[in-house]
Amino acid sequence: MGERVVVVGGDAAGMTAASQALRAAERCGRDLDVVALERGSWTSYSACGIPYWVAGDVASAEQLIARDPDEHRRRGIDVRMRTEATGIDVDAGVVDACDLETGATSRLEFDQLVLATGAVPIRPPVPGIDGPGVHGLQTLDDGARLIDALQRQPDPPRRAVVVGGGYIGVEVAEAMVRRGLSVTLVDKAAEPMTTLDPDMGAFVHDALEGMGIDVVTSTAVDGVESAAGRVRGVVAGGTTYAADVVVLGLGVRPQTTLAAAAGLPLGDTGGMRVDVRMAVPGHPGVWAAGDCVESFDRVSQTWTHVPLGTHANKQGRVLGANLGGGYATFPGIVRTAVSKVCDLEIARTGLREVDAERAGLRHVTAVIDATTRAGYYPGAQPIRVKVLAEAGSGRLLGAQIVGRQEAAKRIDTLAVALWNGMSVHDLAMVDLSYAPPFSPVWDPVLTAAAKASELLRG
Amino acid sequence: MGERVVVVGGDAAGMTAASQALRAAERCGRDLDVVALERGSWTSYSACGIPYWVAGDVASAEQLIARDPDEHRRRGIDVRMRTEATGIDVDAGVVDACDLETGATSRLEFDQLVLATGAVPIRPPVPGIDGPGVHGLQTLDDGARLIDALQRQPDPPRRAVVVGGGYIGVEVAEAMVRRGLSVTLVDKAAEPMTTLDPDMGAFVHDALEGMGIDVVTSTAVDGVESAAGRVRGVVAGGTTYAADVVVLGLGVRPQTTLAAAAGLPLGDTGGMRVDVRMAVPGHPGVWAAGDCVESFDRVSQTWTHVPLGTHANKQGRVLGANLGGGYATFPGIVRTAVSKVCDLEIARTGLREVDAERAGLRHVTAVIDATTRAGYYPGAQPIRVKVLAEAGSGRLLGAQIVGRQEAAKRIDTLAVALWNGMSVHDLAMVDLSYAPPFSPVWDPVLTAAAKASELLRG
Repeated sequence: MGERVVVVGGDAAGMTAASQALRAAERCGRDLDVVALERGSWTSYSACGIPYWVAGDVASAEQLIARDPDEHRRRGIDVRMRTEATGIDVDAGVVDACDLETGATSRLEFDQLVLATGAVPIRPPVPGIDGPGVHGLQTLDDGARLIDALQRQPDPPRRAVVVGGGYIGVEVAEAMVRRGLSVTLVDKAAEPMTTLDPDMGAFVHDALEGMGIDVVTSTAVDGVESAAGRVRGVVAGGTTYAADVVVLGLGVRPQTTLAAAAGLPLGDTGGMRVDVRMAVPGHPGVWAAGDCVESFDRVSQTWTHVPLGTHANKQGRVLGANLGGGYATFPGIVRTAVSKVCDLEIARTGLREVDAERAGLRHVTAVIDATTRAGYYPGAQPIRVKVLAEAGSGRLLGAQIVGRQEAAKRIDTLAVALWNGMSVHDLAMVDLSYAPPFSPVWDPVLTAAAKASELLRG
Repeated sequence: MGERVVVVGGDAAGMTAASQALRAAERCGRDLDVVALERGSWTSYSACGIPYWVAGDVASAEQLIARDPDEHRRRGIDVRMRTEATGIDVDAGVVDACDLETGATSRLEFDQLVLATGAVPIRPPVPGIDGPGVHGLQTLDDGARLIDALQRQPDPPRRAVVVGGGYIGVEVAEAMVRRGLSVTLVDKAAEPMTTLDPDMGAFVHDALEGMGIDVVTSTAVDGVESAAGRVRGVVAGGTTYAADVVVLGLGVRPQTTLAAAAGLPLGDTGGMRVDVRMAVPGHPGVWAAGDCVESFDRVSQTWTHVPLGTHANKQGRVLGANLGGGYATFPGIVRTAVSKVCDLEIARTGLREVDAERAGLRHVTAVIDATTRAGYYPGAQPIRVKVLAEAGSGRLLGAQIVGRQEAAKRIDTLAVALWNGMSVHDLAMVDLSYAPPFSPVWDPVLTAAAKASELLRG
């Protein structure tokens, strides 16, 4: 019998880790027995796709699944669905588990443990928030519950309130509009999408209103009202916004209840601490990855909690390689992200102005307006690029893009520049591609870098 | 009176240099008198846009013009149109010029000289190539002549033969099809678009045939036949392809007749030699930029001739800053380029396989097929990414992309990685953006890098 590996959490990080561990072990001539526990009904799915399922762009949950439990089983992973890990004794090397269908409990021994417990939607501590009709949207099970609620007959919901204007919030608000609901989005920030600076977030605000969404900013939620077992409204800033369904888009926090109870170290962000190999420091044989861990931000050189599928997948791959006997490291992140509101594309990488200030980085900001294609070429769309560069060195610190089709993926060009510590002076002269159907002769990325460079040189 | 600057050539490089020189001089408190000579009828235009003008996507030549002669004059540049420089005496500091309208000649003294004479379409030395109805397509005047020829009445051309399958060749072939002509493309290479490796060029071949173009590969042109003052056909590989109009798409060579006659140094590529400040070595006060110069390829560390608008603009800017009293350097190129054939997008950066072999760089090649968006997201399109990485170090050497909408601009991500000397190992872990409307959770760039990394690590 091989080394026993228990994986807690059957989504991207956990299952990628499990698969990669088996691959690495085979290569290294090691023998692993891998058991994976998943309390939900699905494995290895795209949580980022849930809003598009709600919107109807994606027909079924099955389409969001990269690999189902049986596929994992065929590859040698003992996947146990609807099974929740209820406790961990790290020193003894045991996990207690509960079958959520039967209530049966069991105890699993492990030589190595992978924690990939994910994240949970943030619920503000206000009256009624745990009442009926208030939905988080983090797992496929959450998505299924929301879709069920929206299809309620008779008397399906007509009015939705979305609380919070981050990625999930704006994506779900759009999904609701497309399902024909009348939607109010309540956000405590001055502009939605606080992953951008407010001047860029203002475009998101306009796009949401352009879809007919009632956007209420600078307003915190005070409570949720319900009656007769149904949600009736959201109280915010002294006003009650009528609601037949409420969705929380306030972001998520790492799910670390088990880890904390087991005495495993948590960082300041609330996420589990891990080293570059995704090992939990001080606990040999214990690993963690995905939305439950914190990640090192290479630009601010601080630990952050950025729950994204990209990181979960990469971390899972690194973790698995190491656990199976190989060697790999996770190099950290630069907080790159992209999203879409109606036909407005939004992207960011690196630091926002507020982040740079917090980190004590003196900087200049350049904002340019350009087009996605040569101005004379059919289909050219507006694009605005904002870059932050460090005073003195000219080092790129961050960038944000808002625009229409073909705008936002340019953030990757900036992300790689940032990753490599390029200055805006150097970036302005990089050999980027050009042809009239793809960009002006000076790509907007170059124009923005050149403007920042000029500002720095006076 | 200020220092006299004579600029030869009024397109991107020359006029950007002139404008930037004036800006820099003002900043440095210097006084420049700038005269610009342009033998054609337009200044500062997008030569890359000409095929789209021919196709009808762009309604008029005016739309391709960034700044016309009067705008330049208002900014203080003495632009002389339809005026050809006929000789240069570098030691005496004089340029002889001829007014092409009146035939009047003049002599201009200069303190500083800018050569931005551009490039000329390559004409193979075969019988009839200089006959009627054989068009190069490098300047707006060339474009105007071709459009005139296509609109000939009565009896407009119905059959076009395009000689050469590079960027201009395939773009013009498509333009002709869209104007309703029946088109044959003759290329001596095994696959069109030799800026790509043949395995990627094969997709271009298919796309051209998909538009109804008759693609004849591995076939050199032997001659052009004409009768009664009109072109009749192109002879290639023993066959005569009937033609009412012929367009050359064999690329261009640097236009250096004047420079060579003046004893200025040319490199092995036939382009003028320049240093990092765009000064001509050994000739103080003489500068050059754009399609007439050679550029340093940072990857192969050799001088190359890559006549693209992006380089012309950057080099013009650098040249102008230096000439005007500032300091700037052109950092070289990595041979990034992008194009479109029908709805097929094509891009490359860095070295092709043949380039790597020529440079003695041992390498591995990874090719991956993916989608531009999450597979389940509406509108996901196929994308193929090929990367070359150096054996041992894993250093990225080059990349190529073919795909449908939203595919090709990803080349910029690879170009910046290449620019910074990243290895595919590191590139595979970079924090690129992800959301279902924009990419799979592993962006195709990461997938390609990861595959190359795995190949290298065995």
